[in-house]
Amino acid sequence: MNKYCFGIDVGGTTVKLGLFNEAGDVLDKWEIKTIVDDNGKHILPDIAKSVEAKLAEKKIEKDQVVGIGMGVPGPIKADGVILKAVNLGWGTFNVAEELGRLTGLSVKVGNDANVAALGEMWKGGGQGHANIVMVTLGTGVGGGIIVDGRILTGANGAGGEIGHMHINDEETEKCGCGGVGCLEQVSSATGIVRVAKKYLAGTDKASVLRDQAVSAKTIFDAVKAGDEAAAEIADIFGKYLGTALANVACVADPEVFVIGGGVSNAGPILFDFIKKHYQKVVFAGCKDAEFALAMLGNDAGIYGAAKLILDK
Amino acid sequence: MNKYCFGIDVGGTTVKLGLFNEAGDVLDKWEIKTIVDDNGKHILPDIAKSVEAKLAEKKIEKDQVVGIGMGVPGPIKADGVILKAVNLGWGTFNVAEELGRLTGLSVKVGNDANVAALGEMWKGGGQGHANIVMVTLGTGVGGGIIVDGRILTGANGAGGEIGHMHINDEETEKCGCGGVGCLEQVSSATGIVRVAKKYLAGTDKASVLRDQAVSAKTIFDAVKAGDEAAAEIADIFGKYLGTALANVACVADPEVFVIGGGVSNAGPILFDFIKKHYQKVVFAGCKDAEFALAMLGNDAGIYGAAKLILDK
Repeated sequence: MNKYCFGIDVGGTTVKLGLFNEAGDVLDKWEIKTIVDDNGKHILPDIAKSVEAKLAEKKIEKDQVVGIGMGVPGPIKADGVILKAVNLGWGTFNVAEELGRLTGLSVKVGNDANVAALGEMWKGGGQGHANIVMVTLGTGVGGGIIVDGRILTGANGAGGEIGHMHINDEETEKCGCGGVGCLEQVSSATGIVRVAKKYLAGTDKASVLRDQAVSAKTIFDAVKAGDEAAAEIADIFGKYLGTALANVACVADPEVFVIGGGVSNAGPILFDFIKKHYQKVVFAGCKDAEFALAMLGNDAGIYGAAKLILDK
Repeated sequence: MNKYCFGIDVGGTTVKLGLFNEAGDVLDKWEIKTIVDDNGKHILPDIAKSVEAKLAEKKIEKDQVVGIGMGVPGPIKADGVILKAVNLGWGTFNVAEELGRLTGLSVKVGNDANVAALGEMWKGGGQGHANIVMVTLGTGVGGGIIVDGRILTGANGAGGEIGHMHINDEETEKCGCGGVGCLEQVSSATGIVRVAKKYLAGTDKASVLRDQAVSAKTIFDAVKAGDEAAAEIADIFGKYLGTALANVACVADPEVFVIGGGVSNAGPILFDFIKKHYQKVVFAGCKDAEFALAMLGNDAGIYGAAKLILDK
């Protein structure tokens, strides 16, 4: 009998869903809107309806379904309890139990960044490895840590929250998390722009960045074109991120760091700036960790969610 | 049938051995000398002989023995291969396989700091928890991380090597690991003395520490007696250690930090200095992690080793 599973990635605006076979091939992929009204109480029923409809459409019986894996944007404990998901309007409740009740299927839930890391390990930039650290450099800095093929969830669902590692005592502005001096403030897509603006304001050095909107993309394009100021900005970014990843290495000692998110569109040139500082300060035993680009883009979540339930 | 196991802790001068029942009661405890001559080639045969002799003495048959767990001072990969153990004269070989061959018993081997952490989780300061970080503040700073009840070994056996987290860009002297600015240089028993000497040399402030040999013990005794300079030294130590543990928290998110080693003899007053800085910079979700003193002292290694083989 063919077996199937669902991999679901819940975001603040859309829910991505995938139907997989046991080998991890995605058989179908679709999206529904995330209705955050009424404290997000429609989200799980909408997902359940979409799953039921897909089963009917594909003529799949429930006993052919291993279950549903799902990533959600918030801290999730190992038992499926979410502590809070601001973007969805959710407070504390057992997401896995609730979706299980609605669908009659086995459900496993994880934090979205952690689940994406599992996806990249399974079918993406971390393929062939069982110990990876994934860093997503987007609007924020997300992190997910896979140890021996499994998500490091942690006591409070905060395992892999490396975007909020304190790496800058000089910082004065607050991070979105309420802290001050977080990695996210200097290494996210918005963070590197902050770094650039501060750098450019403090020097008279010529730069093509003065004549255009500054973004992670324009900064690294300028680096590639030989712009000195841009290279110095990239170096500041690399120093913070490389040092932070060296700190991560002496805790989790991964085989590979997988870098994703918008900033990673700059490509392998990123690694020049990160590895230079990483290798300078990292514990000797971790010096040879690989660096790889994420490969699954926005699909990492549904792949990881599928893997989560297949491994249950 | 009663079942037994051995928990063994290999050190540079002595090998500690324990005979345990499955419940984790230690039935007998003894030591043999570590003979490091000839590149440490006598160590495993000596251990095998000692195990055989104990079985004969206690009239225990080999089929009553679950196996041998062992901690060794060096990076050990998950398959039992040690990469190097300078203190023992060992190069790279499969320690678990070799001791298995010599004894005819199942063997599992881990890094000594990691194994000690497992011991403290099972029967010591981390009892009742499955996610702990142990930090041993001795001559060096050792670390061990337990995730969901299991040792985080890492790709290179460097999981939990938090003594070599880079936490001080201003440092000029080299750490024993070859790096510069490691946690160990300021938070080990010798590190806090370095901090104290530097502090005292840079101020005229009166302190009882000027009239006696400075050690971790005299520093914290002086703190307890109200010595202001000693309190400032302890605060520098706490800043480095608290910030480093906050970095660890956003990676591993433990329920509890268990602090052991010579410096921990100062008692709970340590926590005042560590937690103040930890809570200032840690990711909000990890703010309530507990801090506990290690309880097993030098026996943590044999307890953890026994647990390692019982869990195999």
